[in-house]
Amino acid sequence: MNAAVLTIGDELLQGFTVDTNSSWLGTILLTYNIRITKKITVGDKLNDIISETQNILDDKYDFLFVTGGLGPTHDDITKEAFRQLLDDEIIFDENYYLQLKQHFEKRSIKMPESNRSQAMLLKTADVIPNDNGTALGMHLLIKGTHTFIMPGVPGEMRSMVNKYIIPNYIKKTPVENFITIKTAGIMESHLAEKVNGLMEKYSHSFRFAFLPHYSGVSFRINKLDENENLLNVKDEFFKAMLPYAYGINDNTLEEILGLKLIEYKFTIATAESCTGGLIGKRLTDSAGSSEYFLGSVTAYSNQLKTSLLNVPNDIIQKFRAVSEEVALEMAKGVRAKTGADIGISTTGISGPSGGTKTKPVGLVYIGVVTPEKSMVKKYNFNYGRNIHREMTTTAALNITRLAINQA
Amino acid sequence: MNAAVLTIGDELLQGFTVDTNSSWLGTILLTYNIRITKKITVGDKLNDIISETQNILDDKYDFLFVTGGLGPTHDDITKEAFRQLLDDEIIFDENYYLQLKQHFEKRSIKMPESNRSQAMLLKTADVIPNDNGTALGMHLLIKGTHTFIMPGVPGEMRSMVNKYIIPNYIKKTPVENFITIKTAGIMESHLAEKVNGLMEKYSHSFRFAFLPHYSGVSFRINKLDENENLLNVKDEFFKAMLPYAYGINDNTLEEILGLKLIEYKFTIATAESCTGGLIGKRLTDSAGSSEYFLGSVTAYSNQLKTSLLNVPNDIIQKFRAVSEEVALEMAKGVRAKTGADIGISTTGISGPSGGTKTKPVGLVYIGVVTPEKSMVKKYNFNYGRNIHREMTTTAALNITRLAINQA
Repeated sequence: MNAAVLTIGDELLQGFTVDTNSSWLGTILLTYNIRITKKITVGDKLNDIISETQNILDDKYDFLFVTGGLGPTHDDITKEAFRQLLDDEIIFDENYYLQLKQHFEKRSIKMPESNRSQAMLLKTADVIPNDNGTALGMHLLIKGTHTFIMPGVPGEMRSMVNKYIIPNYIKKTPVENFITIKTAGIMESHLAEKVNGLMEKYSHSFRFAFLPHYSGVSFRINKLDENENLLNVKDEFFKAMLPYAYGINDNTLEEILGLKLIEYKFTIATAESCTGGLIGKRLTDSAGSSEYFLGSVTAYSNQLKTSLLNVPNDIIQKFRAVSEEVALEMAKGVRAKTGADIGISTTGISGPSGGTKTKPVGLVYIGVVTPEKSMVKKYNFNYGRNIHREMTTTAALNITRLAINQA
Repeated sequence: MNAAVLTIGDELLQGFTVDTNSSWLGTILLTYNIRITKKITVGDKLNDIISETQNILDDKYDFLFVTGGLGPTHDDITKEAFRQLLDDEIIFDENYYLQLKQHFEKRSIKMPESNRSQAMLLKTADVIPNDNGTALGMHLLIKGTHTFIMPGVPGEMRSMVNKYIIPNYIKKTPVENFITIKTAGIMESHLAEKVNGLMEKYSHSFRFAFLPHYSGVSFRINKLDENENLLNVKDEFFKAMLPYAYGINDNTLEEILGLKLIEYKFTIATAESCTGGLIGKRLTDSAGSSEYFLGSVTAYSNQLKTSLLNVPNDIIQKFRAVSEEVALEMAKGVRAKTGADIGISTTGISGPSGGTKTKPVGLVYIGVVTPEKSMVKKYNFNYGRNIHREMTTTAALNITRLAINQA
């Protein structure tokens, strides 16, 4: 089955908002074997919404997901567009209006009068409840195309799809035709060389794709033949990609590292400089991280490297803050201060300024100290400040993962 | 002038990659008065690429920006699609191939043979250099539409646009028809009530839009009449939105707070629990933050709240970790430990578990201690773990900004 997505809003075209809804829809629909084959974005213009919707309906998609343009402000015109397109009526839902009013009263907030528009609905539509906001969703079956009109706020849209649209209109059991292997610490073309033979071997009934990101390369396997065993083939590729492969699908490096830490009963703490707390932040993205994450210290100034992390001042003076020696002392220091089994440290120059000839922008030292060993790795990630911090964090998590693997 | 964007890649349709390229293009092109009025995404399918490109060319856009499908792997077929569409030829650029080889040799990496495809180019295209990667861009003037074919890697695409496409093909001086006011700490409908009168007053020659995010509501002003003064009108709205309005356009809350800190010669440090280091991370997103940011301590465990932040153990026992009292002690403690002028603290329950009847998931206390005053604010952000952490961080930065404003 196929689907089209129509996202509506000037803010999407003009770049004030990044569209994450359609990619989320792509992932979730795939698990129900519904493939999005076209995505279109138009602005808050009645005629554009109508004509693009008409084009999609003419192409006879099984599903059309429309997001955006349902808010209470004047530029939200999705309902009016569908009213004209379908020659429908817009009705006022008194009950829902009273419900909304109560919702605001409960929070002791006076409901803005503009919210009245939230109780206006297309007459021929089924209502899709919104558990996270005020704009209702709508379902219409238009010439065989199941059309869902939803708000653009990601949390509201997602819960409508999960709680109401999938159970009521899609219903089927998820099928597994796709799997993604996540890797870190290797570039796309080198990863390709490791699996070229396997890709050829399975080319008759699988499709493959490399998805490179700054945080690592993902490798997607798509089963084309129902009789093949996706998991066995995944296992073969995974083995060929070791030790770079760390997980599949939604697995994140921090989540996999967390599981390793639980398995080995290790606690962890970070001593950060250039990453400014990002490693600690990513380690605590996972619920339950309090089981292994004790804390982190970001010591930007040399003085705090000494007072909070016990880095001897003469080592800073002799080798400077961005050095192998200071990275090692920071990792040791945070272990001592927190009592953690593993200490991770970063010290580097994220830029744009601060570089010298011998220590250029992009240089970073990452230290990892475990109960068994100490190591410091040196990298040069010269792709701008933010990417430097992201890549350093990913490398630190990956080095730690590998260090525990080999423990 | 108008533009269309065609992004190519199964990974975009299936949600493995979020398209940030088209929103970036939307923002930058607007400053040159080029308005994107349509965005289309198709998969790695030759026929889909050809037919959608043909549709766009038929609609006579001034510009067409194509991204993706130029990599070295087998599913990158954008060049072949354009070859067929234009009845063009693909030629091998020997010089560029040798250049690529040298690039790899310099880094002591053997060039994967798959990179040979990167030296294949459409015969009738002008080459657009790629300063950040191996895939070259191309420009074609097709029946009056300036068509740019670029790689999908954001850093590569952006530098092509900035360094080559704008100077060579767009050239004009940027015009200012748009301005965005950024606010924090107020919901969309209440912000709307504050400026409804002004919106009416200026409705004849301006267009307005509210852009709500978890991190605050942006308000965009679009000048329609050349003779109007955008900056004066912005000033009027900005005043009406105080103290919630903090900046314009690309300004971030952390950047504005940073400027305030520099102005008042204040240093700052954070003591984080539920935010896991995110406040420190955001404060150090800005280059030059070492001027005011001293460091941060994330103390997840009660023990570390005492040993790293001097929070008296009896206060933790009496009021528990998530309490007004502990938030206050944490902020005081990090000031004392680091010598910072301002201490910010967070302690809360991001969830999904850990909540109780009296302290539910979503509850958070934010402490701010400045040389003049101490305060703790209580919030309930119950929208899931990640959003809880983002909203808490935004609130903490905003409270600190307001506290300094009133100093």
